[in-house]
Amino acid sequence: MIKSNLQSILRHKFSKYFTQHTQKVGLFFFKPAGTHLTSRQRLQIAYLNAFLPLKLTKMKIAVAKGDGIGPEIMEAVIGIFNAAKLPLEYQYVDMGKWVFDKGFSNGMTPEAKESIEKLGILFKGPMETPKGKGVKSVNVTARKTWNTYANDRKFQTLSGVDTVFSKAGINIDLTIVRENIEDTYGGVEHKLTQDVAIARRYITRGGSEQVIRYAFEMAQKKGARRITCGHKANIMKLTDGLFLEVFNEIAKAYSNLKADDIIVDDLCMKLVSRPDLFDVIVLTNLQGDIVSDLCAGLVGGLGFAPSSNIGDHISIFEAVHGTAPDIAGKNIANPTALLLSGLNMLRHLGMMEKAVMIENALLFTLESGVHTGDFGDKSIPSVNTTVFAQAIIDNFGKQPSHHTKPNLKDFDFVSTNRAISNNPMLLGSNNEPHKIVGADFFIETTLQPNALAAIAIQEEKNQLKLVTISNRGTQVWPTGSVFTNLVNQYLLRFETEDETPLTQSDIIHLYSALAKNFQISSVEILNMWGDKKAYSLAQGQ
Amino acid sequence: MIKSNLQSILRHKFSKYFTQHTQKVGLFFFKPAGTHLTSRQRLQIAYLNAFLPLKLTKMKIAVAKGDGIGPEIMEAVIGIFNAAKLPLEYQYVDMGKWVFDKGFSNGMTPEAKESIEKLGILFKGPMETPKGKGVKSVNVTARKTWNTYANDRKFQTLSGVDTVFSKAGINIDLTIVRENIEDTYGGVEHKLTQDVAIARRYITRGGSEQVIRYAFEMAQKKGARRITCGHKANIMKLTDGLFLEVFNEIAKAYSNLKADDIIVDDLCMKLVSRPDLFDVIVLTNLQGDIVSDLCAGLVGGLGFAPSSNIGDHISIFEAVHGTAPDIAGKNIANPTALLLSGLNMLRHLGMMEKAVMIENALLFTLESGVHTGDFGDKSIPSVNTTVFAQAIIDNFGKQPSHHTKPNLKDFDFVSTNRAISNNPMLLGSNNEPHKIVGADFFIETTLQPNALAAIAIQEEKNQLKLVTISNRGTQVWPTGSVFTNLVNQYLLRFETEDETPLTQSDIIHLYSALAKNFQISSVEILNMWGDKKAYSLAQGQ
Repeated sequence: MIKSNLQSILRHKFSKYFTQHTQKVGLFFFKPAGTHLTSRQRLQIAYLNAFLPLKLTKMKIAVAKGDGIGPEIMEAVIGIFNAAKLPLEYQYVDMGKWVFDKGFSNGMTPEAKESIEKLGILFKGPMETPKGKGVKSVNVTARKTWNTYANDRKFQTLSGVDTVFSKAGINIDLTIVRENIEDTYGGVEHKLTQDVAIARRYITRGGSEQVIRYAFEMAQKKGARRITCGHKANIMKLTDGLFLEVFNEIAKAYSNLKADDIIVDDLCMKLVSRPDLFDVIVLTNLQGDIVSDLCAGLVGGLGFAPSSNIGDHISIFEAVHGTAPDIAGKNIANPTALLLSGLNMLRHLGMMEKAVMIENALLFTLESGVHTGDFGDKSIPSVNTTVFAQAIIDNFGKQPSHHTKPNLKDFDFVSTNRAISNNPMLLGSNNEPHKIVGADFFIETTLQPNALAAIAIQEEKNQLKLVTISNRGTQVWPTGSVFTNLVNQYLLRFETEDETPLTQSDIIHLYSALAKNFQISSVEILNMWGDKKAYSLAQGQ
Repeated sequence: MIKSNLQSILRHKFSKYFTQHTQKVGLFFFKPAGTHLTSRQRLQIAYLNAFLPLKLTKMKIAVAKGDGIGPEIMEAVIGIFNAAKLPLEYQYVDMGKWVFDKGFSNGMTPEAKESIEKLGILFKGPMETPKGKGVKSVNVTARKTWNTYANDRKFQTLSGVDTVFSKAGINIDLTIVRENIEDTYGGVEHKLTQDVAIARRYITRGGSEQVIRYAFEMAQKKGARRITCGHKANIMKLTDGLFLEVFNEIAKAYSNLKADDIIVDDLCMKLVSRPDLFDVIVLTNLQGDIVSDLCAGLVGGLGFAPSSNIGDHISIFEAVHGTAPDIAGKNIANPTALLLSGLNMLRHLGMMEKAVMIENALLFTLESGVHTGDFGDKSIPSVNTTVFAQAIIDNFGKQPSHHTKPNLKDFDFVSTNRAISNNPMLLGSNNEPHKIVGADFFIETTLQPNALAAIAIQEEKNQLKLVTISNRGTQVWPTGSVFTNLVNQYLLRFETEDETPLTQSDIIHLYSALAKNFQISSVEILNMWGDKKAYSLAQGQ
């Protein structure tokens, strides 16, 4: 069940130490860059494999029960997992509102953090972040701290969960992969004037590669019909343009998958009429956030929508619905989303057979009309959380009549969790010659464009010439429309003639000169790599 | 029908010159800042009012037929308008692909631009922008050039247009108001390194006020049940925070309207399950783009979704669907979206009675099963564009059995179109004391955080101290997680102790010092207004 490449090699080399039972050994080996090992290492690992199998037959994962209804739905899911005899062992960790309340400002204890980083897998219930205390969401902190770059959310039509789409006979089976780190979620925001705010939207080649590669790998594993990149590259030509470029590059390595792209607004229009046309969709962070919740709505809401946050070292499987404090402790909450998140975890760990068995039992149970109070046929009395979970257990081995999950073979989970001492650096392979060819100065003034230009031109230094002035992205000088409404924040672009290279000193001189006349808010260097200008033109430029 | 405040005053003062007929005079008066007029002005205008009523009984608007199916659907709509005896006169202007092809790089002739700016109202068919020629979309250019800050899109369930929602008996009647100028649509993008791109997302108080005030006014006029602000202020605290703050401020002046707000992802989840819970929704540009196309999908697609772009001087009414070149010239296209856009225009101009009459005729026609080939009951043969339009004309005066539009009284259109010589400046009323308390330096390096900090600290100048280093918005120094993946672009934040005020010279000195060691990509001043820091903290700071 759990086996590293290293373990395979060792099993081959030290076959006399291994028994049939050893296949279930729950040891983590760090994935080596190569397969060469010192004889000392080989002996150490062979020793562990040979003498510790019985102690380590289960894989250990971290479990955080969460707040509100979290503990009771987690109990229901773990009960189902135990009944299915999963080779998992659970280390409960302290995270959530009650941990904030104890004075831990990031919502988790140091012991919890240490356990999760050691085990590499976190299964978590819904958590609440205290409001008005200036603390960051524990959910977001977890995703950011552990760099879980891919948010994988699966949405499927469930019999018994009525929606306008299920009633119309439209079958939904969608996976949205959302980039989980970049975009405006970096929260890098500044006010340039008292009334002009900006957010920096980051898109990087390395970050895009991580999430897009995950999406293709996952799509291939699940035998997807189609993988689609949702974007707004027609407007955000450099940022979403980069994301789309990386998608198209990676697609070349997966020629068996039908890969295409779609503008995000068009995607949403199509998702609400023909969601069955899509299979796997990968998007940047904010667009992915919006599209994934839209898809949750298509299948009945967050109560039926599992979520995985995949990283290189640590992955988090969680229900993204609320903590429902109003019904907490009453044993009436619906554990479906958390169970489906747990099934994502089992599939991630290669436990395909048990995942299929449990999922089919869940589908059979829903089809048979068993439901908690929040959904389902009102003519059939609802059951509580415990009875709902027991019904699923009782249906182990049964097949639903719709959307039966096909049997899949278990595979060996290769853990990539490892001790690292440095932060990994994501670097692209492009390395074209670089030069600076100008700078954008963002200044505060209430002057009209022509008056502003007249002053700015006097400060032109050496080769640097004022080429355009824009306001909220629309050019207002040298040409423009008198109808363009202005805010008291302009962009002045200075460029060299003939793309002559500049130094930082040239920019600093110009900055000093302009600062005598204007309140400078921001300076942005204009770069070229190779023969390409690495900045957008103003609307109308 | 068309009357400025000035005209009211004049009518009062010069009542003997006015007849009952004069009310329909199609004259534009520039709305005066006050009501005081020189005697010469009074005489001139009185003369016009007294002696030209018969010549000027119609209001003139600019009409651009568009590309592809544009001319034939425009002909159908104008035919309906003529049959309804609307007091409109049409000045056809040259815009679209064929104008690009003639060499006009913005897709319109100078004469077209002049006419539109003089008349203030543009009714336009769909237009194509040539691809691969580096020209900007004529639709976007028009919206930006003329500062149409509010994009008003109405979505309603239409009998005869089947969707999963109409089949489920869910009645939709939604208006999305999308901010049309700001956000990342300014297209201010830069590559900071070869593999790190950013887009600047602008949100301003003035721009937010314009669109939100329009939304409240429109909501009040239509007797809306509810007005909702969609946003992502939980993540984008400064930018969407500002938009939401303005919404809440303006809401106070409309205490009769139920005003609330919702996170945009939650909004999308609810729109695909209970769209009937919403009425008017106002959003920033990108989120509004996504949500409005989502809503188009709810009611059957862009073929049924009208669009208005409202500005202070010029407003544009248009169909936002494509030009469908494959069926152009065949007289089979569906004119519904363009007709509905035209009805928005009539309502904007105060021609409520005729707008209601035509809309009810359209609804009656759709209910009766008449349809073009792209929609409707397949068991009833489709009709062509001309027959479809004639059916609507033949049904003038008839009432549909569902969603009948109630009679509304005409109102006097107060044109705000006026000759201006300066660009209007949008200024907030806040004026708290300002100081600079630091700067963010964005630098390119592949160093690890601690090594970077060790060098940067040596360059600390005077009161400016290095307080945090972040990478893609997540703090990596002085504390952070080794699991945070890095790109070769860091943010170094220098602040003064105790918020001591700085000058631009302080920032320039630090810039010069840092530039000796690092490739600086960007500098952002850290401001305070009053006692508030005008910048976000890094995740983990």
